[in-house]
This record gives sequence, C-alpha cells and structure tokens, in this order.
Amino acid sequence: MRVSVIGLGNMGRAMAERLSAHGFELSVWNRSPVRAEGLAAAVRGSAAEAAGECDVVLTSLANDDAVRDVVLGSGAVLEALAPDAVHAGTSTISTGLARELAERHAERGRAYVSAPVLGRPDAAASGQLYVVAGGDARALARCRPVFESIGQRTFELPDAPQANLAKVIVNFQLAGTLELLGEVFALAEKGGLAPTRALEILSGTLLGSPAVEGYGRRIVEGRFEPAGFAMPLGLKDLRLALRLGDELNVPLPAGEVVQDHMQAALAAGLGQLDWSGLTRIVRRDAGLT
Amino acid sequence: MRVSVIGLGNMGRAMAERLSAHGFELSVWNRSPVRAEGLAAAVRGSAAEAAGECDVVLTSLANDDAVRDVVLGSGAVLEALAPDAVHAGTSTISTGLARELAERHAERGRAYVSAPVLGRPDAAASGQLYVVAGGDARALARCRPVFESIGQRTFELPDAPQANLAKVIVNFQLAGTLELLGEVFALAEKGGLAPTRALEILSGTLLGSPAVEGYGRRIVEGRFEPAGFAMPLGLKDLRLALRLGDELNVPLPAGEVVQDHMQAALAAGLGQLDWSGLTRIVRRDAGLT
Amino acid sequence: MRVSVIGLGNMGRAMAERLSAHGFELSVWNRSPVRAEGLAAAVRGSAAEAAGECDVVLTSLANDDAVRDVVLGSGAVLEALAPDAVHAGTSTISTGLARELAERHAERGRAYVSAPVLGRPDAAASGQLYVVAGGDARALARCRPVFESIGQRTFELPDAPQANLAKVIVNFQLAGTLELLGEVFALAEKGGLAPTRALEILSGTLLGSPAVEGYGRRIVEGRFEPAGFAMPLGLKDLRLALRLGDELNVPLPAGEVVQDHMQAALAAGLGQLDWSGLTRIVRRDAGLT
Amino acid sequence: MRVSVIGLGNMGRAMAERLSAHGFELSVWNRSPVRAEGLAAAVRGSAAEAAGECDVVLTSLANDDAVRDVVLGSGAVLEALAPDAVHAGTSTISTGLARELAERHAERGRAYVSAPVLGRPDAAASGQLYVVAGGDARALARCRPVFESIGQRTFELPDAPQANLAKVIVNFQLAGTLELLGEVFALAEKGGLAPTRALEILSGTLLGSPAVEGYGRRIVEGRFEPAGFAMPLGLKDLRLALRLGDELNVPLPAGEVVQDHMQAALAAGLGQLDWSGLTRIVRRDAGLT
Repeated sequence: MRVSVIGLGNMGRAMAERLSAHGFELSVWNRSPVRAEGLAAAVRGSAAEAAGECDVVLTSLANDDAVRDVVLGSGAVLEALAPDAVHAGTSTISTGLARELAERHAERGRAYVSAPVLGRPDAAASGQLYVVAGGDARALARCRPVFESIGQRTFELPDAPQANLAKVIVNFQLAGTLELLGEVFALAEKGGLAPTRALEILSGTLLGSPAVEGYGRRIVEGRFEPAGFAMPLGLKDLRLALRLGDELNVPLPAGEVVQDHMQAALAAGLGQLDWSGLTRIVRRDAGLT
Repeated sequence: MRVSVIGLGNMGRAMAERLSAHGFELSVWNRSPVRAEGLAAAVRGSAAEAAGECDVVLTSLANDDAVRDVVLGSGAVLEALAPDAVHAGTSTISTGLARELAERHAERGRAYVSAPVLGRPDAAASGQLYVVAGGDARALARCRPVFESIGQRTFELPDAPQANLAKVIVNFQLAGTLELLGEVFALAEKGGLAPTRALEILSGTLLGSPAVEGYGRRIVEGRFEPAGFAMPLGLKDLRLALRLGDELNVPLPAGEVVQDHMQAALAAGLGQLDWSGLTRIVRRDAGLT
Repeated sequence: MRVSVIGLGNMGRAMAERLSAHGFELSVWNRSPVRAEGLAAAVRGSAAEAAGECDVVLTSLANDDAVRDVVLGSGAVLEALAPDAVHAGTSTISTGLARELAERHAERGRAYVSAPVLGRPDAAASGQLYVVAGGDARALARCRPVFESIGQRTFELPDAPQANLAKVIVNFQLAGTLELLGEVFALAEKGGLAPTRALEILSGTLLGSPAVEGYGRRIVEGRFEPAGFAMPLGLKDLRLALRLGDELNVPLPAGEVVQDHMQAALAAGLGQLDWSGLTRIVRRDAGLT
Repeated sequence: MRVSVIGLGNMGRAMAERLSAHGFELSVWNRSPVRAEGLAAAVRGSAAEAAGECDVVLTSLANDDAVRDVVLGSGAVLEALAPDAVHAGTSTISTGLARELAERHAERGRAYVSAPVLGRPDAAASGQLYVVAGGDARALARCRPVFESIGQRTFELPDAPQANLAKVIVNFQLAGTLELLGEVFALAEKGGLAPTRALEILSGTLLGSPAVEGYGRRIVEGRFEPAGFAMPLGLKDLRLALRLGDELNVPLPAGEVVQDHMQAALAAGLGQLDWSGLTRIVRRDAGLT
C-alpha cells in the first residue's frame, strides 16, 4: 500500500517513521526538505507530486491556513489526488474547514477523511496514538491499515467535521482539567496539604485518568520544559472550541477562564512552556512563586 | 471492638449496617430514633451516652453547625469520650472546624481523627468507600479496622485538617469536571456530534476516569433523579473550597463558574436534582432544552 | 464643500440628512438605491463614482468585510479618491483594518481618517454625535466642518487605529456597565429593594452617567424593543475588543462574562432585543422571569 | 439636639467633628479613648453610657461582628437607649444583620434606622456624604437634622435592610466599574492608545460619572496610596454582595471576577493599596508592569 505523508513536523515525521517501519511504500513532502533526512521514503519536490502517487495521503500541517494553502491552494493536493486515493487530514483544524474540505473533495469525486490524532509524537512513533476518523464508511475502511499502524485505537465517525469537533472537545476538556488541577493544587499548598498527596488522592479515587495522572505529575513537579504540547498550540486548540461556541452561541465560561490564564502566561513570557504551565499563572494569582 | 455511630443519615446508617455485619459491637444515636430501626445495634438516648461506651466513635453529621453542636455543644460527645477512645469524624466539614476539633480534643487528652469518606451510601454498605483519614499515627492505627470495614482504601494524612482539605479538593475537582462535561456536551450537540460519542471518545482516551464515565453517562442521559448527591449538598461542598480560597487568598475562577451554575439551578427550582444537573443550566444557556 | 456619503444604513442616512441640511454639496451611494429616496443629494451608481467627486468621503458600512470590499475591493473607493480628498471612515471596524486602511491610503498618497461615531442615528440627525477622529493633523483639519455638523464634540487622535481602539473601548465599558446593572438590579429585586430605587441611588451618587441613567431606565422598565443598538451588533463590537485582547494577550474576564450572556441571549432567541436585553439572561439565571 | 457617636474610626471621627461644628450637643465613645482627643464632646466610658443620654445615637463600627457586640452584646447600646431615642446605624453591614437589628429594636420598643453613608471621611467632615437611610417615617424624620449636617443628600427607604442593600449595591457597581476600567486601560495601553486619552473619551461621552472620572484618574496615574478606601475593606463590601447572592441564588459572575482580582492583589501583598489598585492585577495579567 502506497502512503504519502505531507508535512514533516514532529508529528508528521513520527508518523512517517512508523509507517515506513511497517512496510508501507512511502513518499513524503515537506516545505523544508531537510526534515525528510534519514527517512526511508521517496522525497518529493511538491505536495502535489507526493499526493498524486499513493493510495492514502496523510496531511499533517500546522493550522487552517496551512491546510487551506497546501490542499486547496498553491499545494494543489486535492487536484493531484488519484480517483481511488483517500486524503486523510490529521491536522487539528476547525470544523468549518473540515466541512469545506469534505465538500470540495466530494465535488471532485475524491474521498476525504478527517483523522485528527490524540497523543504526542513519541506515541505516533510507537503506534500508540488515538485516531478519531470521520468520513464515509468506504473511505474509512481504506484508511484502516494506516490508522492501525500509527494508533492503538481508532474511533470512527460518519463524517469529517464530527472528527474535528471530537478532537476540539477532547482538548477543551484537557485544558479545563489543567486549570482545575492548578486551582486545587494552589488551594492544597496554601492550605497545608502537599500537592503530591492531593494528586495521589485524586488519582486514587474517582478522578484518576491518564490526563490527571500524567499532567498532574508535571504540574506538581513544575516540570514544564521541554514542552510536550506548547502553550501557543494549546491556546490555538482551545480557541477552535471557543470560536465554535461563538458561531453556535454556546457559552463556554470555564473555557474562557482557561483562555485568560493562557493569555496571561503568554503575556508573562511563558510561551515556551508546556500548556500545563498555565498553572503557573494560577499559582501566581494565589501568591505562590 | 466497640464502635458507636452518631448520626444515621443515609451515610451513617449505611456505615452502621456494614460495621454491624462485620461483627463490631455497635451502639448508635440519631436525633430521630426512627432511623435506627432494624439495625443490629444498641440504640442510645443521647450522643454522649453512645460516645461514652466505645473504642471508636464515628460521627456522621450534616455540616459544621451540626458537628459543633453534637461534639462540642449540647451533644457533649467530646466530654463523654473515654480516655482511650478515638473520635473519627466522617462529616464533610471546613478545615477550620477540623483544626478546632483537633485542638479541643488534644486539650482534653482525647484522640481525634478527621475521616471524611468518598462515595455514596451504597458504597458504604458494600465496603467500597474511600476514606481520607488525618490524625496522629496511633489514633489512625486504632481506627484502621473500622476504616477497612467500610472502605476499599484509606489514605492516611498526618493531621485532621489535611484530611478535610483533601475531601474538599476532590469534590472541587469533581464539580469542575461536571461543568466541563456540560460545556463539551453542549458544544458537541450543537455542533452535530452525539454526546454519547463525545463521551465514548473522552473516556476511551486520556480523560477516562470513574468520574468522567459515571457522571458522563448520567449527563448524556439527562438522568438526574433520583439524586446520588443532591445539588444543595454539592453546592455546600463547593463553598467549603471557595470559602477556604477566600481565607487564603486563592482565586478559584473555575470554581466560581460552577457556583454560578449551581445557584442558577437552585434559582430555577432544580434543587432536587443530582449535582450533575448543573449541566442543565449549561444546556439552557446554549439554547438546548 | 463637497461631501459624499457611502452607505446609507440608519446611521449613514441620518448623517447624510444632517449634512444636506447644513448646506454641504452631497452625493451618495448605497448598494440598494431605495435608501437614498427623499435625500437632497446626487445619487450615484457606484461607490467609486461618489468617492471621485468630493472633498471628504464618509463611509458608513456594517463591518470589516463590507469596508474591505467597498474601499479596497470591488467598490474601489480608494482608487477613485481625488488627490486632495480625505476618506473619513465612520464604521466600527477592527484596529487591524484601520491600520491597513491607513497604510494603503498612504501608499497611494491619499489621506485616511478613522472617525467612528458614538450615538444613535437620531443623535446624528440632530448633530449630537460624538466623533472620535484619528489621522494626521492636516487631514483632521479638513474634516472638521463635517464632524462639527454631525457631532457635538470631536476627540482628535494622532492616528487612525487609535480612533477605532477608542470606539472599541467605549463600547466595551458600556457593555460591561450593562452587565453590572443587570447583576445589581437582580440582587436588589430578590433582596427586596425596588430596582427603580436602586437606579435612583446609583444615578444620584457616584455612578450617575448618561449610560447608567439611560440604559438603567431601559433595564428597569424591561423596555428592550425597539432596539436602539441590536444585540448582534453589540456582540460584534464586544468581540472587536475580545479579539484584540487575543492578539495582544490582554485577558478581559469581565468582557467574557458579557459575551457569555449575549451568546445565551442569542441562543434564547432574543436577538431582536436591544443589547441591554442581555440583562434578561442575568435575570433568568437569578430565577426572575 | 443631643447626638452620640459610637465608634471614632476615620468616618466616625469626621462625622463627630461635623456635628459638633454644627452645634449638636455631642457625646462620644470609642474603644480606645485616644481617638476622642480634641473633639468638642463629652467622652464617655462606655457605649451604653453614651447611648443613654441622647436623641439620636450614630454607630460607626467596622463590620457585622463589631456592631453585634456593641449594640446587642457587651456594649449594650440597645438596652441603654431612651424610649424616644433613635439608633442610626451608619456601618456597612449585611442586610441580614440590619433585619435582625430592626427586629430587636422593635421588640424593645426602640427605633432603628440603617443609615449607611457613601463617601470618604473628608466628605463627612465637609457635609458632602450621601446618606441612604431606611426605617419608618417617624424615625427617619427625627434623624433628618443629623443627616443634613453630615450629608449633601439623603435617600429615604421604608425599612432598614433596604438601606444596607442599597449601599451594598452601590459598592458592587463601583467595584465592577473599577474592574472594567482596569481592563479597558490595559487594552488601550497595549493597543497604542494612551490611557489618559481613553479616560478623556470615556468621561466626555456616555460613561462620564464621578466614579469614572475620580477613580479613572487614580488608575491612569497609578496613584493607589494613600488608600481612600483600602483593599481589604473593599473586598469586605464586595463580599456582602456576593454572600447575599449566595443566600438568594443570584449568580454574580462579574462580581466574582472582581473578587478574583482583589484576592490576587492581597495574595501579592498589595493590601495597603486603595481598592482601585485591583487594576494592578489586571495590568500584570496583561504583561504590563
């Protein structure tokens, strides 16, 4: 099976490595070709070239603008797709763009699947991502071997925008959970309960989840560098939720609290921290240093 | 081992049943003696009488005022305690009162342990509570058989106020999680993703916890009656956190969002709902009915 | 002095009437020419035509997109401007677009002034607007007769974006004041103090301002129709502030509270109300009907 | 007319000076008698003694606890009141305590008026306070000469709790206005508009009020010391509103935003600032120093 990966950021590169190791016939493209070095893949000179010679093309790009440009604009991925190929977009984009991509592909008779992934690049490299894949049943079926290579589990949804909405929602719930942890740890610390004990009790009772355990430890230890998921990216994702709330008239006050703290973190020059570093602002507000 | 249970609300009654089934020699007191019917226990005419004849006395009372009255005031539990007895307070009270209780017991040479529990009465009846117990090591050791009867796990902390703070924190994190679930499900629903699918993806990835799974299902199904934990009690517990934040100057903006929604729920006449019914207000704000 | 008015919505039309009554030589354009009926003005067939034959052109358009289209895009106002003409943009637009307009005009050697106005159409018709005008001193001087015709007072600022920022700020403070009034009146009413008395005391002491008095009366009387400034427009203006806060990393939590309530108002189908009708949501949250 | 002033803090002392200058026959009491030095008044050894020999007794005390103690408790002011005397309580207290005071006085056949004042001690000294007076018509009539001496205007309400509620509401609106000013000035400054210009435009248009002008200047100049109204007192008053909202189920989200910032100010060691110094926290969150 021929797979192309377009966009070799940390995540795209990790997915490409995994796919190559699993024996997929791989071609890749990245704006800066240096990111392709060392990959067992055919390195192509344009996104269209890579997209034109595969069964499944995975795009892994930074944001709505980049996707729009590479797929619909100058990158011409959509135009290049072979009739039987499926385009699986793994980028975290707005549900609005997902809808537009689905429509544009349909107009051209091509198959589009939104397939945002949950997890960090090391999870991609070890096949431990979660894939949330939305599209029609035939297209999903054709992508399955690819998703099974990079992920531990795939959630299938009947259309593309739903998959992007699901991703937006997971990240919203995550961001809100970081805020809550920040607040409870500040209260614990000022009240005389060691945050490590607070975390142990949260984790050991009803609140234990991979997010609470993993991020909880990071926060308790104040270990925000190197960032697993950098603050500006976290804020970008949170805003996908808030903007959708704007469009749909869904007030999201807890999300706005998180936004306030991420903005304050950026204003304080903490943009290089992991997004869980928003809890530094919660601590500062409580007079903890 | 002789155990007294003072206060036979739903939780006190369930703990008493469990302890009696495990062979503890039990005496009980409740303001309204009808709550003691059917218990294999000696029913006493006053809290002091019950407290005066046991190795461990468990108090299970509604709030700070009730504890203050029964233990330090007219109930005279503290005065009645035998020199070797331990008083284990399982009520969810403020850390301030916990500190005062510890001091007053110490002045009289008696042992006090704060032992708030996590879980509902049916968990008590089946020995599945979590017990967060704070006090000195000897007192904790003496209570252990009791805690092992009613609970699946005990977290031990070195003083009483820490245990109450831990309980306050767990309920704060829970309440905040309910709010987040309310917001994401409203966004999902208006955005075209079935909340059941959203929940499945949250639970199946990084956010899965007993709280997210159990409450998530309740919320998705809109099943808020009968209440597992009634709205006014949930608000009372949330306020223990907010009041402590007031004392310690720890701003808790996400907690305030939850408070707003619980107040609105009570103002809308939804006080009989489970506290997760605060999500009804989140839905209403989004124009969902 | 020849003046063109481009855009004859309620505000543009009222300004045109005023200018015509004051003897300015007037030409106008509106997408739908029916809006020009009855005006003592030359009605032109295109924005460019109107813009090409005047000393000062006033644009009065709905939002950033409309301004961009009419001035820089298909409307070609900028291209049509005579070398000595000044373009005075009275629309409430983002500071980013104001900056872009200033640059684009400068590149072409034309003068641009941002001149958003405060007040309603009836204030324009009677010359009682406030004009906040930003641009270079010569351009401002040339617009002065026009601004003195429509307004009671002009605030001059040294560049265009500052004027738009000032407008954004005034509307933000206004919106926040509406929210505060909603909260205090709800508290007064439930606490047993008639909102009219509360308003009288606010107005008669330190808080008295035209906004508190005028909007306060509207809110106390629940008189939200016909709208003086419709909810969706109010939300649009509030978002200009919030989006700028996003860009500049300025958290605006009180503004977010207002946004939540405006979203809830729209979700509840109250979009036809005056923006002060956001207080209906505050009342609903308090259980008042 | 014989007047007693009980409590000679800054406000009580200033009212006493004014009343003495206006020829009232004055007796005073203060816990620490040194505060009475230099006053043309009979200094009494107990609150009861001062209260027992006058037509109107003004109490000016720090908070609910102090009022309760001096009036109902050890101070015995209520017991000492002559049958025809009126007790005018000028302290800012909860509406609940106002209700209790009214009832307790009525039971004893004595007249109670709640008469909280708006303004600072220098306004009292120059007779420029606003007095919000609640009680029955006869009692209000008897206090009128006293209120006219210290105040520029009296707002009369038909019962005591309404007066305290009105005071709570005015301070809530004020506090919220400080927050809004903080947010708009931060946005102005980062966006390139001098806060002094922003203030000039707010004041000169719809938002001009004594509060916006006076506090606005303080905030723009960063002049928070000496405090006119200290942060902890401001927070105490804000909490009277928030606690009443708790009792009545009136969510007050904008008030909570203010509370967050006042808490953060106290946590940052800014308790000695004027309460308008909460805007320092708003600035810090925006990365301004």
